Amino acid sequence: MSELKNDTFLRALLRQPVDYTPVWMMRQAGRYLPEYRATRARAGSFMDLCRNPELACEVTLQPLERFPLDAAILFSDILTVPDAMGLGLYFEEGEGPRFERPVQDEAAVAQLAIPDMEQELGYVMDAVRTIRRELGGRVPLIGFSGSPWTLATYMVEGGSTKNFAKSKGMMFERPELMHRILSVLADSVTAYLNAQIAAGAQAVMIFDTWGGTLSPHHYKEFSLAYMQRIVDGLTREAEGRQVPVVLFTKGGGQWLEMMAGTGADALGLDWTTDITDARRRVGDQVALQGNLDPCTLYASPEVIRRSVGRILEGYGKGTGHVFNLGHGIHPDIDPAHPAAMVEAVHELSRPYHVTD
Amino acid sequence: MSELKNDTFLRALLRQPVDYTPVWMMRQAGRYLPEYRATRARAGSFMDLCRNPELACEVTLQPLERFPLDAAILFSDILTVPDAMGLGLYFEEGEGPRFERPVQDEAAVAQLAIPDMEQELGYVMDAVRTIRRELGGRVPLIGFSGSPWTLATYMVEGGSTKNFAKSKGMMFERPELMHRILSVLADSVTAYLNAQIAAGAQAVMIFDTWGGTLSPHHYKEFSLAYMQRIVDGLTREAEGRQVPVVLFTKGGGQWLEMMAGTGADALGLDWTTDITDARRRVGDQVALQGNLDPCTLYASPEVIRRSVGRILEGYGKGTGHVFNLGHGIHPDIDPAHPAAMVEAVHELSRPYHVTD
Repeated sequence: MSELKNDTFLRALLRQPVDYTPVWMMRQAGRYLPEYRATRARAGSFMDLCRNPELACEVTLQPLERFPLDAAILFSDILTVPDAMGLGLYFEEGEGPRFERPVQDEAAVAQLAIPDMEQELGYVMDAVRTIRRELGGRVPLIGFSGSPWTLATYMVEGGSTKNFAKSKGMMFERPELMHRILSVLADSVTAYLNAQIAAGAQAVMIFDTWGGTLSPHHYKEFSLAYMQRIVDGLTREAEGRQVPVVLFTKGGGQWLEMMAGTGADALGLDWTTDITDARRRVGDQVALQGNLDPCTLYASPEVIRRSVGRILEGYGKGTGHVFNLGHGIHPDIDPAHPAAMVEAVHELSRPYHVTD
Repeated sequence: MSELKNDTFLRALLRQPVDYTPVWMMRQAGRYLPEYRATRARAGSFMDLCRNPELACEVTLQPLERFPLDAAILFSDILTVPDAMGLGLYFEEGEGPRFERPVQDEAAVAQLAIPDMEQELGYVMDAVRTIRRELGGRVPLIGFSGSPWTLATYMVEGGSTKNFAKSKGMMFERPELMHRILSVLADSVTAYLNAQIAAGAQAVMIFDTWGGTLSPHHYKEFSLAYMQRIVDGLTREAEGRQVPVVLFTKGGGQWLEMMAGTGADALGLDWTTDITDARRRVGDQVALQGNLDPCTLYASPEVIRRSVGRILEGYGKGTGHVFNLGHGIHPDIDPAHPAAMVEAVHELSRPYHVTD
């Protein structure tokens, strides 16, 4: 493997000194980039793009050509694991993801098993290896997975949902069935992230997109407990370096203490949490990643710069901050705007890292 | 006006002693009730139903015929105020609300004015008067409005939104325009709620459905500040009784201290906040209303009863709690399930109100 030329992102996640605050963006390889839309059109379906390591590598690297980002993130979908379990993932245009065979009864739950990582998910590991080769050590590569609870909602609902009627219905009425699903998922995600690390991922992130729809009591029992099991089972070192793990529960601002207690290295913050408060609450245990409202990128570069400055000031002096959006970049954003954000982070953050 | 026979709800909001925890449900007059669907079909469009005081009264009273609820809530829509401002509210089947004339530029903002409450919104006041007459003092009647920020998002977007691109875009890029909209709205909502109180509303609630999509900084400046102005301008006494005001920001669990600081009598809690924590944080300043996950009502009566018990136990002994869902009841809920909830609240709460 090529030597890592820019390890600012990894150092910040481990709360080691850095010269400036590193930055990347959730969904940085995506529809807001015309070059992404061109590759996507060439690939065929969205899943064809995910399943083609060369094209997945191409779109992973596109944002790095435009912006001096401090990390790359594997281009893939969070639903690859349930797909590999045999649920038949497909995408309806404008409808979001769907499963041909949702998991809604005891028989379907009994059939769930941990997929083979190199057989059923080999295309993901091939993408990781291809991206690492093509990155040539410019910046670290982030691997990722959806959280067990988040994956379970799609598996039980058969796709996206607004009300979580079936998934929460099962959680309330048949908690033992939901626990069985989550248990298989926790073991699958652990194996999946460890396979990504073995293939070359240098940090991993768990996206708990729907944990924030739970009550605190249910969050602890049905989402956090399974993320804890994953954190406990992860390979935390590879290629002679620590592999940091980031937990992100969208809407989880009230539960940062619980999340920090898992032993993760860093927490993702959405924009509804004040980063000064978050650092005061958990900053001695974990690094923080976030937390600009993605809608800020609808505004002008001047407004974006001021908003970036406010978050950097909110976090304050010293390491332990990775700048990011509070959620994925919206598809209708002008690429000149994230450019202004990245530039502002790099320029305005240096004074916060000068040691006295 | 008839004498109020059951004032448990009003007393709990004012943190005065009660015999049991009162209960009502957000969206209690709604699609989950077959009798509501029948009246709705007779009325014509959804707005025809809102604009017909006799039919609005009929649906307001329907849930009280089924369940021993401790309050009625005016049947209306949060978008009546922007509609009265001349924006042309209409509903597309399955699409949610739309405005014919969204407010997207300086000229449109300059035209906004406070509507006349008895002219343009007389149908709402007529509904309040009709309901009070038909209630005959059984339980108190709650009036309500959307918060300025929540109304502004619909007015600027021209309807519902997922990304808040236009409304947050204006907030970031043209904050003075957004402040002008919010200012007219705050004055309009104050007049609207005061007119409802004059017509007979015995408590009022401000629904800030979309305040929780803001960063803390923007929440304070663009949502809370205008709710503060409304609270300051409300008639707080009528018919010789205090008229309590309830603030509810969905997703606002991180900001309860700020919300309690407005001088509102009570805060609505969604289900992502632990009610024990909430009481510890702000329970000496305000009453708390909530906070069962509406999805709990998909489960069986036994599970519902246990979940109700957990929230009552979480709040603990003494007054200051009004039981409610953390958000509106879903339209596909079996009416036998809210019945179980109401029964459980009344039965299980009595021990928490016994004075030693």
